[in-house]
Amino acid sequence: MNDEDRRNDPSHPKSPAEKLERLFALDRERMYLSRAAAVLRWDEETYMPSLAVEERAEQLAVLEGLAHEKLASPEIGGLLEDLGQPVSGVPAFLPALPDTARDFLRVLERDYRKAVRLPPDFVRESARAEGLSQAAWIEARKKSDFSAFAPHLKKMIEYARKKAEYWGFGPAAGNAGTADPSAGLHPGSSVYDGLLDSFEPGMGEAEIDAVFRPLKERLQELLQKIAAAPKAETGFLRLDYDISSQKEFSRELLAGLGFDPRRGRLDESAHPFTTTLGFNDVRITTRYARNDPLSGIFSVIHELGHGFYELAVDPALKSGCLAEGVSMGIHESQSRLWENVIGRSRAFWEGWFPAFKSHFPGQLAGVELPGFYRAVNAAGPSLIRIEADEVSYSLHIILRFELERRLVSGALSVEDAPAAWNAAVGELFGLEVPDDASGILQDVHWSMGAFGYFPSYALGNLYALQFWKKCITDIPRVEELLIRREYADIHKWLGETIHVFGRRLDPAELLERATGEKLSALPFLEYLETKYAELYGF
Amino acid sequence: MNDEDRRNDPSHPKSPAEKLERLFALDRERMYLSRAAAVLRWDEETYMPSLAVEERAEQLAVLEGLAHEKLASPEIGGLLEDLGQPVSGVPAFLPALPDTARDFLRVLERDYRKAVRLPPDFVRESARAEGLSQAAWIEARKKSDFSAFAPHLKKMIEYARKKAEYWGFGPAAGNAGTADPSAGLHPGSSVYDGLLDSFEPGMGEAEIDAVFRPLKERLQELLQKIAAAPKAETGFLRLDYDISSQKEFSRELLAGLGFDPRRGRLDESAHPFTTTLGFNDVRITTRYARNDPLSGIFSVIHELGHGFYELAVDPALKSGCLAEGVSMGIHESQSRLWENVIGRSRAFWEGWFPAFKSHFPGQLAGVELPGFYRAVNAAGPSLIRIEADEVSYSLHIILRFELERRLVSGALSVEDAPAAWNAAVGELFGLEVPDDASGILQDVHWSMGAFGYFPSYALGNLYALQFWKKCITDIPRVEELLIRREYADIHKWLGETIHVFGRRLDPAELLERATGEKLSALPFLEYLETKYAELYGF
Repeated sequence: MNDEDRRNDPSHPKSPAEKLERLFALDRERMYLSRAAAVLRWDEETYMPSLAVEERAEQLAVLEGLAHEKLASPEIGGLLEDLGQPVSGVPAFLPALPDTARDFLRVLERDYRKAVRLPPDFVRESARAEGLSQAAWIEARKKSDFSAFAPHLKKMIEYARKKAEYWGFGPAAGNAGTADPSAGLHPGSSVYDGLLDSFEPGMGEAEIDAVFRPLKERLQELLQKIAAAPKAETGFLRLDYDISSQKEFSRELLAGLGFDPRRGRLDESAHPFTTTLGFNDVRITTRYARNDPLSGIFSVIHELGHGFYELAVDPALKSGCLAEGVSMGIHESQSRLWENVIGRSRAFWEGWFPAFKSHFPGQLAGVELPGFYRAVNAAGPSLIRIEADEVSYSLHIILRFELERRLVSGALSVEDAPAAWNAAVGELFGLEVPDDASGILQDVHWSMGAFGYFPSYALGNLYALQFWKKCITDIPRVEELLIRREYADIHKWLGETIHVFGRRLDPAELLERATGEKLSALPFLEYLETKYAELYGF
Repeated sequence: MNDEDRRNDPSHPKSPAEKLERLFALDRERMYLSRAAAVLRWDEETYMPSLAVEERAEQLAVLEGLAHEKLASPEIGGLLEDLGQPVSGVPAFLPALPDTARDFLRVLERDYRKAVRLPPDFVRESARAEGLSQAAWIEARKKSDFSAFAPHLKKMIEYARKKAEYWGFGPAAGNAGTADPSAGLHPGSSVYDGLLDSFEPGMGEAEIDAVFRPLKERLQELLQKIAAAPKAETGFLRLDYDISSQKEFSRELLAGLGFDPRRGRLDESAHPFTTTLGFNDVRITTRYARNDPLSGIFSVIHELGHGFYELAVDPALKSGCLAEGVSMGIHESQSRLWENVIGRSRAFWEGWFPAFKSHFPGQLAGVELPGFYRAVNAAGPSLIRIEADEVSYSLHIILRFELERRLVSGALSVEDAPAAWNAAVGELFGLEVPDDASGILQDVHWSMGAFGYFPSYALGNLYALQFWKKCITDIPRVEELLIRREYADIHKWLGETIHVFGRRLDPAELLERATGEKLSALPFLEYLETKYAELYGF
């Protein structure tokens, strides 16, 4: 049906209200397809029998292709234009629209524009290349052989560059091969800015760099002080903790922290994750290790932080494009707030240590709260990001940020990347990287072409402490509440200040509205410096 | 894109081979959408949190609507016509096509024709009405109040009639309001024939009636003989059997009967079912009751029968329209063969009773194989279909068949249906129906508009024994194999004789090819009469 046909169709919406209604319906339809894909992915990670993996990939390709097609449809484009939301350029909202509808149009237009600018062939080809690249990475990591992965990494960088250019970022944006006259929308931007934009809307490379530089310096100093202090005793955390008791304790945590079993569930998977399958259906997963009971527990608390966010989005935004966490960074702020700021605090364990000890009286015989609290917060230089403590974690991220910007800009070649990685680890942690599997091959992200994703982890740490600083001013008795395992006030504060908005506010707007501040590393640094000075007595 | 555009499109397939390839791809795409919907339904019945139910229905409506749209697409219609498979009328296959491709075209054309003849508005409205009707049935059954369900039942009958007429069945087919000139394709057919056709392709009301009449008579006679004999002792099956041991035994059964855990799984749900999520992904479910250990076990064996069928379809038919069981009746033949003919045989329990007893030594103290075998096969008149034994089960089906034909033809009014039900129960079983919940409201099928479905359960019993009679001629040592718990030869025979064909052969063709016979109740009757004469000593 062409434009002319559509306008003459008697079922075609005529009034702005009808058009808006139709747009809501189209948006919900493509969101339902994405949710359906999420169900299939959740199942794949939790219960799916092993031999089904190949066909499941094909089923997902069909669903995701359709979701993309539905979003990039001429009908959505036409309605957005009719409703005064031009498909590019400066918004010109209908004055009479309520705020939510205005936000809906703005965000849907952004999603639509991103989708429609990627040629279908490019989407298909890059998806296929990602699949091959991820498989190659898995093999290369097993053999710790970077050279087997290098050609795929090159391709992934190439696709990432192209994608950012299609979206109108970078110096060559105007020549990206798209006929869209609005290409080159972001003058003065870098290609890496374009990649960042899909994970952290509105956040640029230069802004992150300005915050990460001083952060890096002070974290390194703190890490040196910790290294000079006597180590925390952690041997009792390497004993045998039976899995069924770990599960039992996780269930107690889930209920105690306020997760509604009618609106979500906890399962197990090889890599913990959170996924939203509906506005009343958020699934989290964890994994348990016999000789590391904290791993499963902190994964549960981390994923709960993501889950609480998704479950507290305004129900009025039900299932539309606004009904999600706004960015990876803000999402990580919620998971890290729960996992680290709350979950690794002394007050939290004053509340939970007796329950934990009652499950493992043998393993924890003679261990008291102060020693347990020290062990939970043991810090030091490390090779592996996902095993890193609160202090060194952000340094791992900064390392990846610095390398991936240079990979994307071309300043660093793929061939030279492993050496650059190893040098950075030496500089940051004083460690030697024994092999690529413990070095540049350790993370999956680049193999999926997800450049610009890593910074959100560290941004999450910074946002978390900016939010928390405000939260403890607004709720002065937080520590007491944590000791008493009463979380309702914290949920209420996070809900009203952050969660309820979904994608209605961009990260920077949300942060400023909540805290009155722009992005800053200071609250995070002050928090860490105070906490660790007390822990290690310097 | 209209027809003209499509033919001029350079990416449009030109040669018959290209067209066939394109048709395979389109068929797989719509099948993947159906499979995705099946994943969502499986999740809904097994793990989904309770409050997600409403949105899940909306997600499913979108997926199923798209699957229907993809099947009823002009592109599929055009390609079928180009490939010499006219969208109606007599097939005119391309002579050079391999057999599988010919079957593919024939079956896809049939699916396409059924889909395209239902106006989209009708599909949407009837789906909505089904939802309301099912909800009303649940409430009406709770209160045992037929009058609250009656208006919905009327609507369901009306929709069912219309559907059959759209498909070209019944005396009024030509006037069904469709512009399709091929309406009225089935001269001399009844509306009920049209409903049967979607569950048991090619099977008509008159043919079933001719088989069910004598079946009813001889089953009633057999039931009277059983009633006159001393009852089997079953008290030990009403003791407390702990669920975890029941689960343990079910897992042993699953492995012992040859279910590959890499290609499927067993979970729990309120109502046991089997669903195919991919050609390497068949899920079965069961439910366990503390005071009825056989319920969970026989559900597992029953659903395994369905599962074995789906898993043994020719892998070359991978994920297309041919890669499924051919009909409800043939499917039930496989589940009932495993559940009853094999699973309730003496030889089967000679193999499994020791293992079962080892899980429940207390409950089964003093019980030996002969007594257990008698208890497993206890028979007698009953009010509830799903609790009925092998002898009375088919009588429950015949009752529903006789009533629903008359409801659909209009010979029986909805108002008079409960009285007709109760009279039939009196006639068949000599029982009085105490309330509608134990009578006409007991089954979900009519509330979903699934008229013509019930006969497949009894057809399954008949087919099962026709197949089995042949199977035990081809594998003379079957009893010995069952005692030794060796099922490979049986799987091989069922696979090669029935399963491998998927939908390539219609039920009657499949039956004749496998057994040389047409549908007959004799093998079933002879099997029951011999088995029960021996069990009850008459």
